[in-house]
Amino acid sequence: MAYLIKQGVTMAAVIDFYFDFSSPYAYFASTRIEALAGELGMQVNWQPILLGPMFKATGSAALVDIPLKGAYSRHDMQRTARLHGISFTMPDPFPVATVAAARIMLHVGQSDTRLARAYAQRVFHAYYVDGINIGEPEAALRLAGELGLDVDAVAAATAGDAIKSRLRDSVQAAMDRGVFGAPFMFVGDEPFWGFDRLDAIRQWVRTQGAQASSG
Amino acid sequence: MAYLIKQGVTMAAVIDFYFDFSSPYAYFASTRIEALAGELGMQVNWQPILLGPMFKATGSAALVDIPLKGAYSRHDMQRTARLHGISFTMPDPFPVATVAAARIMLHVGQSDTRLARAYAQRVFHAYYVDGINIGEPEAALRLAGELGLDVDAVAAATAGDAIKSRLRDSVQAAMDRGVFGAPFMFVGDEPFWGFDRLDAIRQWVRTQGAQASSG
Repeated sequence: MAYLIKQGVTMAAVIDFYFDFSSPYAYFASTRIEALAGELGMQVNWQPILLGPMFKATGSAALVDIPLKGAYSRHDMQRTARLHGISFTMPDPFPVATVAAARIMLHVGQSDTRLARAYAQRVFHAYYVDGINIGEPEAALRLAGELGLDVDAVAAATAGDAIKSRLRDSVQAAMDRGVFGAPFMFVGDEPFWGFDRLDAIRQWVRTQGAQASSG
Repeated sequence: MAYLIKQGVTMAAVIDFYFDFSSPYAYFASTRIEALAGELGMQVNWQPILLGPMFKATGSAALVDIPLKGAYSRHDMQRTARLHGISFTMPDPFPVATVAAARIMLHVGQSDTRLARAYAQRVFHAYYVDGINIGEPEAALRLAGELGLDVDAVAAATAGDAIKSRLRDSVQAAMDRGVFGAPFMFVGDEPFWGFDRLDAIRQWVRTQGAQASSG
């Protein structure tokens, strides 16, 4: 694994990537973040969260439900996808509850982080390209089955209290760290909110790298 | 003046640029928008607005006052300025009421749009670089005086009901058009929200231009 030197402290070169499957901008980021990390010699740590509790903390709501901002954001989502060449069809229904998919991803990630990432990418694609309602727990399970996972075993594991409290703890830990939206990225302690901050990550990492080399 | 052809309709190649002097991201945009317009062969129509009434409509508040988002946004403002090489010192007090400066700009713009733009740029610079509290009406007037305007005449004109209702009408017209934040830009009917959408304006105009040439 590559390392970055920042202010004399060596830290693993990891991008922590927080997302809710019901955020189109998180989906856009999910299609680009691995390439960005590769370019920078970094790894991506995929972290499913739930926006609901965060919106309560910030007094916010789903973008598309906010007066004026809702209409704009629907338009901006379509345009952003087009400008970046990302396949995207605004899902209906939208937004949906993503707790089932998030629990499945956490469960899979306990034993295999690569498979968990593949599951997350499959869920995003299913919702924003294939038009599958990932809010339905059966659909979220079926997508796990497509990746070769034992659907009954996954269903049993994700119905248990352990995984439920693990997701709650993850969301709380993210909020304690300052996460209030999605996509949200950290490089070390440096926070980045939004698909439109991927360039800022690139610039920030390169600047830190240059400082480390010359420092 | 240059023109764009869009879907068979000729429209003036103008970027409508809406801003509140109390938005750091609007200040960042103000330092870049003329260069962007020049590059695209377009003009900029500078439109002062007030965010207060818009936040009421969207249930929002000043960014820095929102839990979690406030701390992040202060950090992002500093970083954005640094990454783009823009002089910036977070003002204190912040935010401030910008009604006096907005009225002065509207008043000046009735007879001289170039001078009004120069005034807007001076106000932004005063607040975000020189640390002048532009929320104080006397300070906003003094900046007009620096540009050679008759301070007493400006004070008299901007205390009148005509300019007050003109600003109210401008804010309402902007909201009717879909403006809910700052900076907010339009090219024709195409809306763009945020300093981080200047690249999207460039891409959008070029794509439209290419379509017009080949259509």
